[in-house]
Formats: sequence, structure tokens, C-alpha cells
Amino acid sequence: MSETLLSSRNLAFELYEVLDAEGLTLRERFAEHNRETFDAALGTARSIAEKFFAPHNRKGDENEPRYEDGKAVLIPEVKPAVDAFLEAGFLNAARSFEAGGMQLPTLLSQACFAHFQAANAASTSYPFLTMGAANLIESFGTDEQKQRFLQPMIDGRFFGTMALTEPHAGSSLSDIRTRAEPAADGTYRLKGNKIFISGGDHPLSENIVHMVLAKLPDAPTGVKGISLFIVPKFLVNDDGSLGPRNDVLLAGLFHKMGWRGTTSTALNFGDNGECVGYLVGKPHHGLSYMFQMMNEARIGVGMGAVMLGYAGYLYSLEYARERPQGRLPDSKDPTTAPVSIVQHADVKRMLLTQKAYVEGAFDLGLYAARLFDDTTTLATEDERKQAHELLDLLTPIVKSWPSEFCLKANELAIQILGGHGYTREYPVEQYYRDNRLNPIHEGTHGIQSLDLLGRKLAQNGGAGLKQLIRLIADTSERAQAHDALTALRQPLEKLVARLQGVTIGLLTDLAQGKVNSSLANSALYLKAFGHTVIGWRWLEQAIRAQEGLARGNAADVGFYKGKLQAARYFLTWEVPACHHELDLLEARDDTCLSMQDEWF
Amino acid sequence: MSETLLSSRNLAFELYEVLDAEGLTLRERFAEHNRETFDAALGTARSIAEKFFAPHNRKGDENEPRYEDGKAVLIPEVKPAVDAFLEAGFLNAARSFEAGGMQLPTLLSQACFAHFQAANAASTSYPFLTMGAANLIESFGTDEQKQRFLQPMIDGRFFGTMALTEPHAGSSLSDIRTRAEPAADGTYRLKGNKIFISGGDHPLSENIVHMVLAKLPDAPTGVKGISLFIVPKFLVNDDGSLGPRNDVLLAGLFHKMGWRGTTSTALNFGDNGECVGYLVGKPHHGLSYMFQMMNEARIGVGMGAVMLGYAGYLYSLEYARERPQGRLPDSKDPTTAPVSIVQHADVKRMLLTQKAYVEGAFDLGLYAARLFDDTTTLATEDERKQAHELLDLLTPIVKSWPSEFCLKANELAIQILGGHGYTREYPVEQYYRDNRLNPIHEGTHGIQSLDLLGRKLAQNGGAGLKQLIRLIADTSERAQAHDALTALRQPLEKLVARLQGVTIGLLTDLAQGKVNSSLANSALYLKAFGHTVIGWRWLEQAIRAQEGLARGNAADVGFYKGKLQAARYFLTWEVPACHHELDLLEARDDTCLSMQDEWF
Repeated sequence: MSETLLSSRNLAFELYEVLDAEGLTLRERFAEHNRETFDAALGTARSIAEKFFAPHNRKGDENEPRYEDGKAVLIPEVKPAVDAFLEAGFLNAARSFEAGGMQLPTLLSQACFAHFQAANAASTSYPFLTMGAANLIESFGTDEQKQRFLQPMIDGRFFGTMALTEPHAGSSLSDIRTRAEPAADGTYRLKGNKIFISGGDHPLSENIVHMVLAKLPDAPTGVKGISLFIVPKFLVNDDGSLGPRNDVLLAGLFHKMGWRGTTSTALNFGDNGECVGYLVGKPHHGLSYMFQMMNEARIGVGMGAVMLGYAGYLYSLEYARERPQGRLPDSKDPTTAPVSIVQHADVKRMLLTQKAYVEGAFDLGLYAARLFDDTTTLATEDERKQAHELLDLLTPIVKSWPSEFCLKANELAIQILGGHGYTREYPVEQYYRDNRLNPIHEGTHGIQSLDLLGRKLAQNGGAGLKQLIRLIADTSERAQAHDALTALRQPLEKLVARLQGVTIGLLTDLAQGKVNSSLANSALYLKAFGHTVIGWRWLEQAIRAQEGLARGNAADVGFYKGKLQAARYFLTWEVPACHHELDLLEARDDTCLSMQDEWF
Repeated sequence: MSETLLSSRNLAFELYEVLDAEGLTLRERFAEHNRETFDAALGTARSIAEKFFAPHNRKGDENEPRYEDGKAVLIPEVKPAVDAFLEAGFLNAARSFEAGGMQLPTLLSQACFAHFQAANAASTSYPFLTMGAANLIESFGTDEQKQRFLQPMIDGRFFGTMALTEPHAGSSLSDIRTRAEPAADGTYRLKGNKIFISGGDHPLSENIVHMVLAKLPDAPTGVKGISLFIVPKFLVNDDGSLGPRNDVLLAGLFHKMGWRGTTSTALNFGDNGECVGYLVGKPHHGLSYMFQMMNEARIGVGMGAVMLGYAGYLYSLEYARERPQGRLPDSKDPTTAPVSIVQHADVKRMLLTQKAYVEGAFDLGLYAARLFDDTTTLATEDERKQAHELLDLLTPIVKSWPSEFCLKANELAIQILGGHGYTREYPVEQYYRDNRLNPIHEGTHGIQSLDLLGRKLAQNGGAGLKQLIRLIADTSERAQAHDALTALRQPLEKLVARLQGVTIGLLTDLAQGKVNSSLANSALYLKAFGHTVIGWRWLEQAIRAQEGLARGNAADVGFYKGKLQAARYFLTWEVPACHHELDLLEARDDTCLSMQDEWF
């Protein structure tokens, strides 16, 4: 059977030829692991994803959760899938042995998780959200909170959500209105409405632990007045048994274009004044706690976008190989047999573009996961801090780039299948619909671009940026050992040099208070910066492919040549085009900024 | 009420300030028309579209046609809508008075039709397909065929389809297998299977007239062996009454991602050997007949893509004006009131991009419609031939450019609405799903690019291209009268100059038989050529806007400034980026062409 979720050969390339996963086993935390334990975990993930998640991907889409008697009802296939995921230990893949986990590097836990994301984005969301909520309590909760709420999540009995968005405020979290009043017993009473809460209700677990942003009565205005609360669906008794229902009401479900298998809920907290919440950490620090968890969550979202792109790429590739149609331009003789469409130049273009987007973003997502491991397991605090700075800088790209370009990959997959691709009889249209969510949730594209240009670049005196520039220069230098990479290396070098100049200019303007004009074209900056990063990752992959070719294993020649061709595509077809974005940024072009409402 | 289908002000601008619709009334065929009759027709179209088509757009999407007892069942709202369309005479808007039509210019009939396309793409398909089928019979049928099949279509009693695609052949029409055997009575017996036949069954009309491509027993191989047949669902008696059911079987329905209200059918012809068909025109000329009708059909498809983009643009604009959220970057004080999101630079960018795409493509579609009028009503045969040559050249752009860029506009409309835009509670996600069909049907994007580069450019010694270059130069010259347009004019001039050089090089290569390498990057050529054309149209609009501003009507100032800003966006943000495509074309870059199947 051909692979439908991801290419195992490519995954092995990333882990063992590009990202040196085995090097991680030299670190104390991962010392009990080796390539065999890694591959065993990956094999299990693949097999559960194929057996339990992929088969109901379409059914979940066609039978979205229903609202019945105040509850969300799902198709029956979701629970056994999620249970298999839990039983195999993937919820706690990166958690330490003593906390009941597998103590895998995040690099490996993300690689395992990728299989589920490719198989069924919607059903995978339930454990994904639970992991995020659990990590928050683990990092910032009290021992009692950990015992009462975290341990049952680790055990798979409780699931979790992230409840941030409110109807009137959207991305503008400083304006949230949900209130938390202190009660005599040290707990809080919450009152407010949240929307778009994924996994806000479902029958998959005994209890649901909502991580809710709300404001205390004495809260300062704005983002510095936001606190974080645990709000369980059912209260939990001291002995761990479930108590009465908390005052959290499922007000309704949203009906989405895609990603339909995941409940998207409107939740009302405290309609009857009895919604009990537990403050996590210090008052008014809620948003900073959320942000500290965001790197990991955004890697997850980015990888989700990658995997939808990946699944579409593999499907359209298989289709293109099997579908005979038409003849090459120089042989229009209708008596000859049609060729498979993978032979047509324009179909090759659409496949190569997908490959470049999907495998480029896949590499970046895993690179970021490995960087996350560096933030926790590098030897010195200084090294860990450096890794953190780089990861902080890259996070907007890790989240937004796949959301944009792997969606584009899905668009191309549909096009390759033509009329069939547009029907629900084939899977590619669902990937496209599912993936359209990714540029929106967990920080929209616009938010990511402002985060990058307005915050991340200048953080810590630009330490992350300086590191990145150094790393790209290092890759470029290593590429010089390979003559075949000259034409690939040069466009990247040219772009990076120019990007630095433009960046310094923009940061100077920002420092001088020219805020609106500097940030006006942040979307262009995000594109140019993102292409620089992905271009760098492709050059790195190209070096590894050259090294692989040099080893001379005949079975691998095609694989490495494909890598080189995709690198060539990205570095010569995509990277040079970014000079146009830099032109506009350099000119502080104000075409959009100066547009007036009444002119539309 | 704000306008939801299109901007009447912009339509008036196009008709009366850019495209000189009134000038058409000086021609004999349109002499009985004037601005008042034009506006009356437009007003009727708008009112029927708003009253009968828009209200069931969502319902049709949610309740796609069902297959029941060999028939397609639709929601009840479609028939009254289509009936209102017929009763108002829009099916025959461009047909002559004596044939029962309104004898409107195609420019006006397309402008009327645009309202229906914006209101409900799916329900509008039924009359659209009927118009295409009727035009074929009108142009190539015998008098008897006209009386028996065309007249009932004109009367609204029979509907029509275009039956080209077969399961194994897709876009490769030379490989179709449907056979037509001559019968003793001069009719034919057809046998074969067709798929993706829109409107292939429905309960909207007494009869359905399928225009079917098939091959005669003595047919030459390839496209020169394809003949065109009328195949009615019910046979028609000599007195015009319906005879028995013909041997055309509805084999099943396709379930699409969007455009769900239109039946997409699999039809079996002659399963019982009794499928009666009537040859249209000469044997083996079927495809050329189809091609002769294709300009009009492709204008229609292009305009359909535009109108979905237009509806999404207007909706997201309204939303952006009404939705308060966040603050400008230089005023982050959370105690101030949030601004409406139309104030955010990145939202302006997404609106301005939509405006540039949608209004640019709208102008081109109407320009092409007017050109179609020129092909039939200009004074001399030479002038008509010239108009035909230009229209032939532009048709791939008229069809493909809106399909790509107005789909992109829909993607931006969703992004502006954020999480809401992704839900089916708002209309923009449906526009996006509906519009994804347009790059596929009526000739895929890839087919259009080959048609342009491999056929249209060199046709008639490049006469169409020479005309286009002259017209762009003329526009550019007139733009020189306006200093404010210098920065808009120059990027277009630069691109056109370079495009000419690249085009000559490619045509030379083609003439020398380097077919595969010249056509390999046809998608890049389509993009650069399309942006040149739309850039030209925006410069033309900008000139008219300058002239409008000079007239000094205060109420129009905002409208014209918006036009200038959108022109500026397109000509300075989009047009210069095309040099990168020209670089690759000029280099005969073979990155895609040289990719090998086994490297993927």
C-alpha cells in the first residue's frame, strides 16, 4: 500500500539526516531512548492513525457534532480512536517517565502526532487541546490543582480546552469581559461568554477542564489585567470523584466550512451565578502564562496545516501517477496511448510546488520542535536561553507559513484531480476546507505578522534575529562545498542580505515611534521573512541530499534528486520573487495605509 | 439597504464612463435602445436576483439535489426563481426582437446576468447552460432543429446542457468514446457515458436538450473526428408535443464541495441501444462548433467567478465597517474605544486587494462582452474580424484570471470575518467553495494557459496580440495627460515592453518545434499576461476616474479616489511582481519540466 499520511522515507531523512534526532539521546533526559525506541513510537503512531483515525475522517466531516439536550453528540468512531491514542501513551509522549509519560523529545512527539493530524485533523483536536490545557496546569498550577485536574488529564479521564475568545472582542483579548469574583472559600465565581471554544463539549471524557481567561474585579485595564482560571465542567471532590455539574452551559455549536468533526462551541459561564473557577498562578498574569505555552501550541497548529497539505500532496501524486490523460505537446498523435498526467509539465509544476511547500514546512515544524527540546535540555542556561530566543522569533512563521502555503498546496491537489477533486467522493476537497481554518485560529495571519515585526524581531536586542542570520550564513557556507548548490544558494544569500537592511530600517522607524507606517505592511514582511526561513531550510535539506547522494545508495538516488529539485524550485522560483515585497517595504509604501473607508 | 450583489455606482461607471455603452445605441441593431432601456433592464435583473435568487442561495447549498427514482430532485425555490428569470426575458436578452428577444447588446445582457451570478451561482447555472445550448442550435442547427428544439428553449419550456466530458478522458476530448451510429431515418443512435454534466437532470422544464459530443463510425481519430448531436431527454413529436422518453439515463449525481445547488450528473446514453440523436451541422465538425461558442461561454464563466468575488468583497467590506475590534498600533490605550476593523492597515490591504481583483476582473469581463458586440455589429467585416481576433486572444484571460484571483478575493473575505467567516452562519465561506469550481470547469487553468501560449498568440499572424499592444500603448499615452498617473503607468509600460520580448522568444521557439520546453511554463505566462491585461484595464479605469474627479461632482469624489487607490494597488503592488515570472520564462527554466516521476 502506498503511504497516505506522510512519507516515512522523508520523515527518516528529517529525523536522522537533517535534524540529528539521535544526537538528542546523548542528553540526560533522553538517554534511555535510541533510534529503535523512536522508530517504535513512530510505527505505533502510524498504525493507530491509519487504523482508528483515517477511516472516519470523511464520516466526521459529513456528520458534524449535533446539539442535543444541552450536549454535543459525536459520531461513535471518535471515542475508540481517541482511546487508542490515549492507551498508546501519545497524550503524554513528551512528559517525564515519573509523571507517567514516555519522556520522548518534543521532536519525536511532534513527529508521532503528525500522523494523527494527517489522518484526521478534527478528531485529533480533542487530545491536542487537552495537551495544551494540561501543560498550562503543569507549568503554573498549584500541587493541589495538579492532583485534582492535571492527573486525571494525564490519565485520560479528563479532557481540556482553551477558552479565550469572546463575541465582541475576537483577537483583541485586552477587551474581554468575562469576570471572576473572589468567593469566601478562595475560589472564584465566573460570569461571561466565550465563543469558538473547540472541544467545549463532547462525550469523550468524564470531565472537561476549561482554561479560561477572565478579569478580576480589581484588574488593571487591558492585557495586564487578564487572569487564568481552571473551570471544570463537573466539580471535582477531594477524593477525585466527580461532584455536581458546574455552571458552564453549552449555548450552541458553530457550523464550520471544514474541520467539522471538532465541536466549536459557545459557552456561557455563570448564567446562574454559580460557575466555580480556580485561579492559576498569580492574578493578572493569565495572558503571559498563555503566551509561554504558545510556542508549543503554535508549532502544533503549524504542523497541523503541514499535515493536511502533506496528505493532499500524497493523494494527488498517486492520482497523477495512475490517471492516463492526454499526450505531451510534441506528440499529439491521437492514435498513441495517453500518458499518465504526472508526465505533463504543468502537473509536475503543481506537484513540485506542493512538495516544496509541504516538505519545506514539515522540516521547519520539526526544526522548531527540536528547538523546543533545546530550550529544555541544552546543557547551559545560556544555550537554553538562546534556543528560546530563536524559537520565539520563528514561532510566527512556524504557525503562519504552513497555514498559508500548505493551504495553497491543497488548492493545487484539487486542481490535479480536476472535476473529481472538486467532489466529496475524493478526499482533497476536505483537506482544503479543513486547512482554511489554520490561518485564522491560534492567532490570525495578521496577528502573526504584527507579532513578528512589532515584537519578536526587537526582543532581547534582536538576539533571535542575529542567531538566525548566523545560522543561515553557516548553512550557506556549508553549501559552498557543493558546486551543484551554487544556483540555489545565491538567491537565498541575496534575499537575506536585503532582508537585513530592510529589517534594520523598519526597526529604526519603530524605535522612532513611526508605529503605524512601519507596521502597515507587516503582511509583506511576514511573507518575505517566511520565505527566507523556508528557503534556508530547503538549502539545508539540499546539503543533506547532496551528502546522501555521495553515499551512493542506489535505492535512495530518486529520493535525493527529488529533494534537490524541490529545493531548486523553492530557491529559484519562489525566493527571488520576495524582492518585490522588500521593495514595497523599503519604500514604506502607503497604498493600503492611506486608503480611506469612504473610498471603498 | 447596502448593496450585496454588486455596486450600482461601479456598474454605471463601467457602462457609461469606461465602456461607452451608449455608443452602442448608435449601431443599427441597438438603435431602439438607450440608457433608459439599459437601466430598466438592469433594475429588473437586480430586483429579481434579490427577490428570487439570493434568498435561497444558502438553502440550495445545504440541500443539494437528491437522486430519487432515476430523477434529480431540487428544493422548491429554484423553479420560481428560474421562472421569474424567464418571464422577464433574460434568457433571450441578447436575442433579436423577431426571435423573441430583447435585442440588448451582450455588454448589457452580461451586466444583467451578473446580478444573478452574484445572488446564486448554482440556480443561475440552469438558464446559463440553456443559453449556451440554444446558441449552438441557433448558429449551427437546421431550420427543423430550430423549430423543434430551439424555439421551446427560447420559450422557456425546454432547458439545455453541454455534454462533453467522459470518465476516462477528462479534458482530453480527442479521446472521447461516445459513439453515434446512423439510423435508417437519418437520425443517429448514441452510446456512451458522460460525467460532470451540469443541469443533466432537474424538474425545471418539460424537456432537456443535451448537446452531446460523439464520434461517427467513420470518424477520423482525434479532435477532428468529433461530431455534435442534439439528444433530447424526451423525443419531440412533429407537432411540438413531447414524445416518449429517450434512452438517456441519469446514472447518478456528483456531490461537490460547492456550487451544490446545480445538479452535476453522470448520464448514460443508449444503455438500451435506443438513444436517438440528431446531427448538428456537418459530421466531424462538432468541436469547432463548440469552440465557436466558447468565447461567450467563457466570458460567462469568468463573470461568474468575478461575481462570487464581488459578493464576498461587499459582504466583508460591510462587516469590516460594522465590527469594532482592537486599536491602531499607535494608540494601544485599552481605555479608548475599539475602532472598526476597516481602520486596520492589514484589513484595508485585504479589502483593497479584493477591490482590485474584483473590479479589475469585472471591467475585463464587461470589456470582453462589448468586444463580443463588436464582433457582430461593427460596420465593416474587417473591423468585426479584428474584434474577433482580440476577443479570441483575451478569452483565456477572461476565463482564468477571475477564476484564480477572485477566488483569492473570497479567501481574503473569509479572513476579514475571522472565525465567523469560517462558519456557515455567514455567506463568505460558500462563495469560496462555489468559486473553487471556476478554475476547473469550461477548460482548466492548465488548458487555458496552453490555449493562450500554444494557440491564441500566434493565431492570424499574431494579429490579436498586435492589437492588444496597440491598445495598451494608446491607454498609456492617454494616461500621460494626468501627472497623477505617472507612477501607475510606468510599471505597466515596463512590463508590457518586457512581455513582448519574452513572447517573441517563446513564439520563435515554438515555430522551431521546441514545443515541450516553450510550453512547460505556460502557467507563468498566463499569470504575467493576465496581470498585464488587468493592469491595462486598471490604467484605463484610472484615466476615467481622473476625468470624473475633474468634473468636480462632490458626491463622486470618494468613488473616484477609491478607483485610483485600487489602480495604484494593482499597478504598483501586483504588476511589478510579474517580472519574476518573465525571468523564469526568458531563461526557459526547466525546473518543473525536468522533474521526474520517480523523484517525487
